[in-house]
Amino acid sequence: MEYPSKLIEEAVNEVAKLPGIGKKTALRLVLHLVKENENRTTLLTEALRNLRTNIRFCRICHTISDNDECSICRSHRRDRSMVCVVEESQDVMAIENTSQYTGLYHVLGGVISPMNGVGPNELKIETLIDRIDRAAGEVKEVILALSPTMEGDTTAFYLHKKLNPFAIRISSIARGIQVGGNLEYTDEVTLGRSITGRTLFN
Amino acid sequence: MEYPSKLIEEAVNEVAKLPGIGKKTALRLVLHLVKENENRTTLLTEALRNLRTNIRFCRICHTISDNDECSICRSHRRDRSMVCVVEESQDVMAIENTSQYTGLYHVLGGVISPMNGVGPNELKIETLIDRIDRAAGEVKEVILALSPTMEGDTTAFYLHKKLNPFAIRISSIARGIQVGGNLEYTDEVTLGRSITGRTLFN
Repeated sequence: MEYPSKLIEEAVNEVAKLPGIGKKTALRLVLHLVKENENRTTLLTEALRNLRTNIRFCRICHTISDNDECSICRSHRRDRSMVCVVEESQDVMAIENTSQYTGLYHVLGGVISPMNGVGPNELKIETLIDRIDRAAGEVKEVILALSPTMEGDTTAFYLHKKLNPFAIRISSIARGIQVGGNLEYTDEVTLGRSITGRTLFN
Repeated sequence: MEYPSKLIEEAVNEVAKLPGIGKKTALRLVLHLVKENENRTTLLTEALRNLRTNIRFCRICHTISDNDECSICRSHRRDRSMVCVVEESQDVMAIENTSQYTGLYHVLGGVISPMNGVGPNELKIETLIDRIDRAAGEVKEVILALSPTMEGDTTAFYLHKKLNPFAIRISSIARGIQVGGNLEYTDEVTLGRSITGRTLFN
């Protein structure tokens, strides 16, 4: 693609580095900004810069936060006996949206993935152990809510080993057929797990 | 959706104003930037701000340009007897990519659309007439390459009326079945036009 302007080309190249955005979409977005009022671009770039410069992560659970401690960790309404371990801040948002969980969280910042050079030390595992250790008896259960992938399972296994010395329950979120899903179209691994992990009616 | 941070919420709201980007995609893009190096965000916002602040439009054909006159209008290699009238700068890019056209362009900046409050005065029609008038005999043909919509047709009709006094040919890009297209799945209007506008083999 030939661009009529170096400025367009540079903007397209930067926008196209975002995940799921190719050069064609990037060009459409960039030309949209050119056509709109200049103020629109200012608002957009200010919001992004402001976000990137001022974003904080909770020093306890490492989720994205406006402050040093996130609203969940500070809240007196949360059940402090449960800690749900997730990969990323968006997982916290997703679980919060279900309104089914009232405990605390711990964001690892990813999963163990030797292929991508991510070992246990790159993740917030040490602070999790510290947290459980310091809470001494307050935390009764750690729920592992990691991706059902090989990396997620490896991480769960590693965490299980690390958390075993503590007198706490360690659980994992249920795997199974999606609500509204169809047996016929469910992959065999999920279907297999949904049978071995079946729940009793009574 | 509840966001864990006001900064995230503001950034998501701004990004979601872009065409074709909803709140979920915006959140994914914003969280991607948070996870990446801060430099990435700086490069992105600088490229967008730089673009919006410094972008110029060619004073002759109104296409996006780095200078006062675009490279096409300045080129000595272009056929100055033809002017192709398009709606937007991206149409110029699209036609340039075909390498089938060597003439000049004129970007209207849209089409006549009373529904959206766009009349002939909101478009660069006066400058087109001026251009043809001033080129006095140099321009032999004006090619209308507008969208095959009611607005595009209205604009073409209006331009035809305005350009009629000049001793020039006025043509429109061919409408018909797409290359690689299938008769069976072509809509009736296109099929009808492709029959009335049939081309001779000999």
